[in-house]
Amino acid sequence: MKTLYFEDVEPGFKFSGGPITVSADDITTFAAQFDPQPFHLDPDAAKSSFFNGLAASGWHTAALTMRLLVTNLPFAGEYIGSRIEIHWPRPVRPNDQLRVEAELLEKRASRSLPKFGVFKMKILTLNQHDQVVQELTSFTYHPRRNPES
Amino acid sequence: MKTLYFEDVEPGFKFSGGPITVSADDITTFAAQFDPQPFHLDPDAAKSSFFNGLAASGWHTAALTMRLLVTNLPFAGEYIGSRIEIHWPRPVRPNDQLRVEAELLEKRASRSLPKFGVFKMKILTLNQHDQVVQELTSFTYHPRRNPES
Repeated sequence: MKTLYFEDVEPGFKFSGGPITVSADDITTFAAQFDPQPFHLDPDAAKSSFFNGLAASGWHTAALTMRLLVTNLPFAGEYIGSRIEIHWPRPVRPNDQLRVEAELLEKRASRSLPKFGVFKMKILTLNQHDQVVQELTSFTYHPRRNPES
Repeated sequence: MKTLYFEDVEPGFKFSGGPITVSADDITTFAAQFDPQPFHLDPDAAKSSFFNGLAASGWHTAALTMRLLVTNLPFAGEYIGSRIEIHWPRPVRPNDQLRVEAELLEKRASRSLPKFGVFKMKILTLNQHDQVVQELTSFTYHPRRNPES
């Protein structure tokens, strides 16, 4: 599966993965460790919050997206990001089923690492209603099949 | 502590927090759940990887940064981000001690949410050698003391 080198894909290339289900317990367990705010921890307290109900931390959504990417991506070698941008247009709720849709936007040689190229990708995370819960733009390193060429 | 409203701070305002220590077990536990790549999971496999040794997932660094922010920030109300940018210039290693240094860069009224203002902040995460492991630029919502004014 993970066989595609930098030379093997061009802008417009797409892949997808999921779904993965997020439980209320998943949401509160992550939040207790990394984002301990009432609306991520307590369904009752969350009712009167900005989110009007329990919502996953955006960092939890990001981490789950990474899991979906790592387990589904078709690229050879390691998957390492140096720079990313995220927008969270709406929250993840208990029992949401998340999936990812990824598209290669641009590719270029790495200036600093001659064995690698850089992919700029747009990665959408969607729920079971096809609503976008996260838009990720990532710059990641990918090994070149022929670094000398 | 958490008493500062949108009106109470101006660009140049700073706060900090930490340190928090990251163990090898923390690194591999997070990675097993969210970023299961060998260089985040196995010290031996990591030796021959891009990172030349076990390194935390960038998403783990981001989540730990959020914990440091939530437990140290001086702002009133909820702490909610809509958009962020991250650069990871170097990895987090086992037993690193992480801290955050945050600075308000810009503030403006929210166009869509009249009870809130938006802070653009630069948040550096540093290790015990004062090396930057993450640069985060965040856009977050903060309640106004006098929404009508």
